[in-house]
This record gives sequence, structure tokens and C-alpha cells, in this order.
Amino acid sequence: MSNPTAAMIVIGDEILSGRTRDSNMHHLAKQLTLVGIDLNEVRIVADDEDEIVGAVNALRVKYTHVFTSGGIGPTHDDITADCVAKAFGVSIGVRDDARAALAQNYDNPETELTETRLRMARVPDGSVLIDNPISKAPGFSTGNVHTMAGVPKIFEAMLEGLLPKLGAGKKILSQTVDVAQKEGDIAKILGQIAKANSDTAIGSYPYYNDGSFGCKLVVRSTNADRVAAVAAEIEAAFLG
Amino acid sequence: MSNPTAAMIVIGDEILSGRTRDSNMHHLAKQLTLVGIDLNEVRIVADDEDEIVGAVNALRVKYTHVFTSGGIGPTHDDITADCVAKAFGVSIGVRDDARAALAQNYDNPETELTETRLRMARVPDGSVLIDNPISKAPGFSTGNVHTMAGVPKIFEAMLEGLLPKLGAGKKILSQTVDVAQKEGDIAKILGQIAKANSDTAIGSYPYYNDGSFGCKLVVRSTNADRVAAVAAEIEAAFLG
Repeated sequence: MSNPTAAMIVIGDEILSGRTRDSNMHHLAKQLTLVGIDLNEVRIVADDEDEIVGAVNALRVKYTHVFTSGGIGPTHDDITADCVAKAFGVSIGVRDDARAALAQNYDNPETELTETRLRMARVPDGSVLIDNPISKAPGFSTGNVHTMAGVPKIFEAMLEGLLPKLGAGKKILSQTVDVAQKEGDIAKILGQIAKANSDTAIGSYPYYNDGSFGCKLVVRSTNADRVAAVAAEIEAAFLG
Repeated sequence: MSNPTAAMIVIGDEILSGRTRDSNMHHLAKQLTLVGIDLNEVRIVADDEDEIVGAVNALRVKYTHVFTSGGIGPTHDDITADCVAKAFGVSIGVRDDARAALAQNYDNPETELTETRLRMARVPDGSVLIDNPISKAPGFSTGNVHTMAGVPKIFEAMLEGLLPKLGAGKKILSQTVDVAQKEGDIAKILGQIAKANSDTAIGSYPYYNDGSFGCKLVVRSTNADRVAAVAAEIEAAFLG
């Protein structure tokens, strides 16, 4: 498979402290699978400049796209925009198009767009804005790094506008076979099937529910015929 | 705060593909907060040797503890144990104590502990086993890297046994003030409060529900009096 690749950086003290359970990563993973972009890595980092800059620079050279969520609001702990600018070595400031987007929120933008609120219109030089249909404060794409909000409904709305503009790959198809056996009982034959069908990816995901062990065997490929054929081979081996 | 620090590595194609929503990370984050270990970073990587080895080596020198979840079963895609051994530069093989743990699952271990099943008793040299009260196949601590199962109920049971053995810090306390205002309307004063109380950590987490904006302001510290005092200051500023 030669689909575009992607990584995500979640900026979130609230996730690392266990206060909030992440949902943006799960949403992004599902959406990228639908359009054929392979999400290969996720990093969750604290609201710390060195960590964010380090993650942006490590990942942007390695993957086709990097998506970030969180830290672009107006408060003292919102440092993502500055970190992206620092990672790219460009300056950052309030930009007219971002200010105009933000101004839609106010009846009298000239007086109501205070210095604090204008923090949300600061954009690293050379960026392209990402539309925010909900609260107007825009995200931005700097090179291949797409900086978006952390509030899930806003993240999802920004992504919906952004994704069609990115070069997509072939949709990754999958089929799941649920086998009510322990992995140790099927591992040898499954390994042989995986080796013989290495053009597909076969994952085994064990589960334990109500005292019973089992595993979900997932066949993935961009080729529908191959997914169906390998899933049928797995069914014949373990459910036959 | 000088609590022990931690990172987590989630090994999981199924999470990156969006098939499964992670729960181990959220569970670990909550448990570490309770015992006063600061979770500072999480990486989610694919079932890929270079990625896993790279993450283990990047994080184990940086944090007091590294916790991993996933990839220690018997199937072809379970490569975590080998990757940890490679990261530490030690050999790996079936060990008697791990074999004895696994043997509890079988009436006739001598015939039933096949080569495939014994893959689950392979442990990097120098490791200490982590008890698995559910399915017996053990996890293991190699230096400061704690390798555990991906199945949530088993991960949680392993962690419950492991955590009391680790040096804990002071429990991180928090108090949340819910303010039904946009961040832009409170950011300036909140920034002043944060600056004046820099011995505590103050986070602002915006939300958007049913057309209404608001933010949760979270004060964190190991000192209960300071948490209460700063939360009271925030309440006076925005709810008074």
C-alpha cells in the first residue's frame, strides 16, 4: 500500500491527567481510514513548549500529514500556535484574514476584538487558514502540519472542511472474523495464513468478556477481493 | 512538584485504524494521578519493530517509568517482548517462572504447552514478572519499562498488582470551576491569576454543548490548601 501517511499530536494536560478521555484521536483515525490516509503514530504531549516543538519537528519530516488538536484558544495555556511557528522557524502574528474570521463573532469588532481575543487570530507566517464554522476562530495548515481545536465538535467540523483538500489514497477495507477461541489455540495456523497472504494485513485482537476469551481477526487491504478471499480462508480454518 | 514521571506506549494497529477506542491509556492516566505519578507523554505506535524499539529507547531514559500495553500474545503480530529485549540489548527466551505461570491454564502442561503457546512465556533477560490473575500469561518489568497486555481487563488487573510496588509520589489534587463564558472573555484575568499562583497548575478546557460555550478551569497541586485557595480566587473572579 502506498497511501499517504499521517501522525497526530494531541496537546492535552487534561487527557494525561485522566480528567478527560480523548475522542479526537479516535475520530481522526476513523475518518482517515475512510479516505485512505494511514494514521501511523499518535503522540499525546503536555502543554509544554519543548515537547510540542519536538513532536512537530519529529513527525512532520516523517509523515505526509501531521494533525494537531488542542491549545489554540486565548488562555495562558494555549501555546500551540507559537510552538508550530517555532518548529518551522517562522514568525507569528495577527493576520487580517484570521482577524476577519474572528470578527464574525462580534457586533462591534473594533471595540470587542480585544488584545486577548485577538490571540486567536495569531497564525504562523505562510499558513493557510482552516475554517471553523462553529466558533469562527480558525485553525491553520503550516506546510503539512494541520493545527486544529481541541473541543471535539470544533475539531470534527474543522476536519470535515480540511480532509477533501488533502490528497487521499485508496480506502482501506477490512473484514472481521470473530473466533471464540484463545489466541494460543489459533496462533500457529493464523501465522501460516498471514505469511501466505502478506499482501494483506492480518491483525489478531484478543478480548475477554464475562469470563470468555476470544479474538477478532481483522483482514485489511485496499483490494476488496483479497479482503474477502483471506477472510474466507480464516473462516474455513477456525469456524469450519 | 517532584513526583515520579511516566510515559506510556500503546502498541495498537487497531487503535490507529479507528477500529477500537483506547481505554488503557485513560485508565492508566487516572490510576497514576491517584498515586502521584505524573503521566507526561503517550505514544501510540503500530505493530512495527523499529517504531516500538525507538519509542521504548526514547522514553525510558526520559521518564521514571514507561508502561506499555499490547502485543504480548502468541500470534504473529505480537512482537512487543522481542522489541523490549532489543531496546535493552538483552536476549530473550522462555523462562521457568513464566512457563510455570502459564502452565496453570492447562491440565496437562507437558503436552498442551505447545511451542506457540510458550511464546507467551518468553521474557527479556533480567525482567521481573508482572502477575496476570486473569489469563496467567505474565507481563514483565525490564528495568523501568513495564510491559503489559492490551486486553483492558487484563491490563487493569496487571496494573493493580504492579502499582503498589512502584515508588509513588504525592497525590495530585484538583478542583474544577465551571464557567459558562467563552475563553476569550476570561483569558486576561485568568492569565493574571495563573501568573500570581504559579505554584499551582491552572488549565482552561473549553467546551461547546448544545450551542453554548463554556470552560472548565482546573486547578492542580499536591497541596490541598493551595488548590482550595486558588479555586476560590477563580470563583470570586468569574462567578462572583
